[in-house]
Amino acid sequence: MARALQEARAAALRGEVPVGAAVVGAEGIVAAAGNRTRELNDPTAHAEMLAIRAACAALGNERLIGHDLYVTLEPCPMCAAAIGFARIARLYYGAPDAKGGGVDHGPRIYTHPTCHHAPQVYGGIGESEAAALLRQFFAERR
Amino acid sequence: MARALQEARAAALRGEVPVGAAVVGAEGIVAAAGNRTRELNDPTAHAEMLAIRAACAALGNERLIGHDLYVTLEPCPMCAAAIGFARIARLYYGAPDAKGGGVDHGPRIYTHPTCHHAPQVYGGIGESEAAALLRQFFAERR
Repeated sequence: MARALQEARAAALRGEVPVGAAVVGAEGIVAAAGNRTRELNDPTAHAEMLAIRAACAALGNERLIGHDLYVTLEPCPMCAAAIGFARIARLYYGAPDAKGGGVDHGPRIYTHPTCHHAPQVYGGIGESEAAALLRQFFAERR
Repeated sequence: MARALQEARAAALRGEVPVGAAVVGAEGIVAAAGNRTRELNDPTAHAEMLAIRAACAALGNERLIGHDLYVTLEPCPMCAAAIGFARIARLYYGAPDAKGGGVDHGPRIYTHPTCHHAPQVYGGIGESEAAALLRQFFAERR
């Protein structure tokens, strides 16, 4: 989660909503990324999506079996579904997101019988620092 | 939808699950894509995602306000959420997807109060040809 927080801080410096993610396996950190939706003009360029895509590219596999994902904010429904498609084993997230989250809020992606793969979910990991980064970012923009 | 079906047929020829999508605005077709998850080793490379990303890149904007998306299959939860983030105005889809869909099945992404933008949804457009392509693809692989 330290690496995910580092990516979130780097995202804030780029003027992006500060969210960071890292994909980790037995081999260590396979990929890490921060949010780049503005820079890339890409509404899908959330930290989790970029980290998953980079990890799949690095491993030459569209499934990340046995790998875990650390992300500083509760994933949105898009990312939650992508995490399932990638067969991530364990999802560790920092701050909960009552407005935009899709794991423990909103559509609760993993609770539906049509969900083919649900990771084990652990929320609140590094929550205080992750939430502080987001609060500071939005406070500076109001 | 003719262009989306063309992209779906091209995807089948590449050995990909035959789904195609096109983003259309007043200026015509901005981007079109077929599923490339296997080719790219990318679980997020669904037709809708690739078409949205290409359209945003072409327009230099992370929002596709006033644009419509045509896709041959009901979008999954990941794509449904991305379509909302991109502010797509109207979503036209072909075949319903009771097992993997996220619009009219499963998590029904647009029905939650936390959904910031829901497109107008029209299902069953070009359904018979879209469904036939999928049936044929899976029949050949059983």
